[in-house]
Amino acid sequence: MSNIRAAIIGYGNLGKSVEKVIAAQPDIDLVGVFSRRDKLDTEARVIPVADVEKHVDDIDVLYMCLGSATDIPEQAANLAKLYNTVDTYDNHNEIPRHRAEMDAAAKESGHVAVISTGWDPGMFSLNRTYASAVVPEYEQHTFWGPGLSQGHSDALRRIDGVKKAVQYTIPAEDALDKARRGEGQDITGKNAHLRQCWIVTEEGASQEDIENTIRTMPDYFVGYEVEVHFISEAEFDAEHTGMPHGGHVVTAGKIGETNHLIEYTLKLDRNPDFTAGVMVAYGRAAHRLAQAGETGARTVLEIAPYLIHPLGLDELISRDV
Amino acid sequence: MSNIRAAIIGYGNLGKSVEKVIAAQPDIDLVGVFSRRDKLDTEARVIPVADVEKHVDDIDVLYMCLGSATDIPEQAANLAKLYNTVDTYDNHNEIPRHRAEMDAAAKESGHVAVISTGWDPGMFSLNRTYASAVVPEYEQHTFWGPGLSQGHSDALRRIDGVKKAVQYTIPAEDALDKARRGEGQDITGKNAHLRQCWIVTEEGASQEDIENTIRTMPDYFVGYEVEVHFISEAEFDAEHTGMPHGGHVVTAGKIGETNHLIEYTLKLDRNPDFTAGVMVAYGRAAHRLAQAGETGARTVLEIAPYLIHPLGLDELISRDV
Repeated sequence: MSNIRAAIIGYGNLGKSVEKVIAAQPDIDLVGVFSRRDKLDTEARVIPVADVEKHVDDIDVLYMCLGSATDIPEQAANLAKLYNTVDTYDNHNEIPRHRAEMDAAAKESGHVAVISTGWDPGMFSLNRTYASAVVPEYEQHTFWGPGLSQGHSDALRRIDGVKKAVQYTIPAEDALDKARRGEGQDITGKNAHLRQCWIVTEEGASQEDIENTIRTMPDYFVGYEVEVHFISEAEFDAEHTGMPHGGHVVTAGKIGETNHLIEYTLKLDRNPDFTAGVMVAYGRAAHRLAQAGETGARTVLEIAPYLIHPLGLDELISRDV
Repeated sequence: MSNIRAAIIGYGNLGKSVEKVIAAQPDIDLVGVFSRRDKLDTEARVIPVADVEKHVDDIDVLYMCLGSATDIPEQAANLAKLYNTVDTYDNHNEIPRHRAEMDAAAKESGHVAVISTGWDPGMFSLNRTYASAVVPEYEQHTFWGPGLSQGHSDALRRIDGVKKAVQYTIPAEDALDKARRGEGQDITGKNAHLRQCWIVTEEGASQEDIENTIRTMPDYFVGYEVEVHFISEAEFDAEHTGMPHGGHVVTAGKIGETNHLIEYTLKLDRNPDFTAGVMVAYGRAAHRLAQAGETGARTVLEIAPYLIHPLGLDELISRDV
């Protein structure tokens, strides 16, 4: 069987991670990276985005490493008319709308579009569905972190006198314990997570003023347990330039009078790498479903697990079931 | 949409748990329990096993709550010729053979047979496959327990002077930690678990002799870390008559130079209840796949997650993805 021929569009953190993950696959080859730029820091072939329609016969699956804010809403449906696609669209409220648009585009052109892969949405979505299907009564909570929050780090960096800053979101241990015991009725987004800030100040800036600005910032920090740490630039550069993330899906189930805890945990060194790992695996499903004559959009809930694995079904059954 | 009409065959611990789980489902009704006995301790309709061929028009899915040692090998394929079925066949080495037999029987008669559901095989199988699909390099270990081991408890009860006994299998903390760090190359079944025995002796029996017999019992205890606790019958009856179980699937993955831990944990008050929870959910998939015109055997790896959930796909996508 010949390898799956893959391409990437978008070459930020996620695109670079997808390139790295594809390089480690036995059954997927990278044809090239579509980019607006002439030169990218890659050994891969760089193809001008303007030529995106010219490669429909050379590419089995297109990994759309595009942002959810504007790129995917603007470009994804048109790309799904040309290629089988995989995306990581993560605007949870808008996923049904995105699915409908991608479904129409992919069906019209005879392609498969796998949407909203990654880990949340993605692996966490799967675990929410599996866990709630197998226990008739349950309480289910998702916790995020310890992990870097891009939006909150940006908010810190906009404060006067802040030179560098990161914000980690960390699940509150007491909330986690309550969720595991099925006593998490009073858990909210705010009391389930604490917000840890690591800050390097500009020379002469007032740490007191900065801390006060943080603690009184509505939406972002008010109502949360907040930790503020001021550190040296050297410490910051050594310890706080990674992109760790992860979290837990905790389901406390009841069957009659018996209790059953189902917990799925991720601890990720580098968020875009793991997101890319999931995305690349679902590219197999996009290709295989299209090969089998299926068309339209699919979420991870609609795809049989074996379709994402490099091993064949018989080998998987012997090994994993 | 009318409810799924279900029946149970086999009314031991698992059959009773399946009855309890079905009673809590919004979309599944129990038609009856097939049994060799005239009277069962149930409010459900009891149907003689001899009449099993007479109800093919009244039953959408048959939950086969039968043992893997002899009942399933002897009876399952014949039942799959009559009904859509779900089983919990757990003889891992023989699952490919079982799948082939069930596939032939179900295809011949136009039914769907979902095989080897439960949690291992079952939910653990799913997690082994998902986790190993999304990281290109990995080390993966399955730990069982803390949980009651039926076979080991039976072995203890056969020792002279033992009145009552249970054996819990417990994951060794140091092995779990190694697995989480991706340093579990030397983990074996023996050093990954400790065996904890709780024993009530007959009057006049020698605890020393019993403990010695345990510690020198080949296969069952030799080579394991073993704890032996002698307790009163009152304590035994109060603390050790449950059927707790659970475990972990730990996958330490690598993407380039970054590390990614994926861990799935179950803590189950009562093993047959949770097994039944998974089994009942997969009954939905058996019925839905058959309604869609599919036939043959399916493992959990071959079934799209949404097919096992009581909620419809659109609602699941809005809620869980």
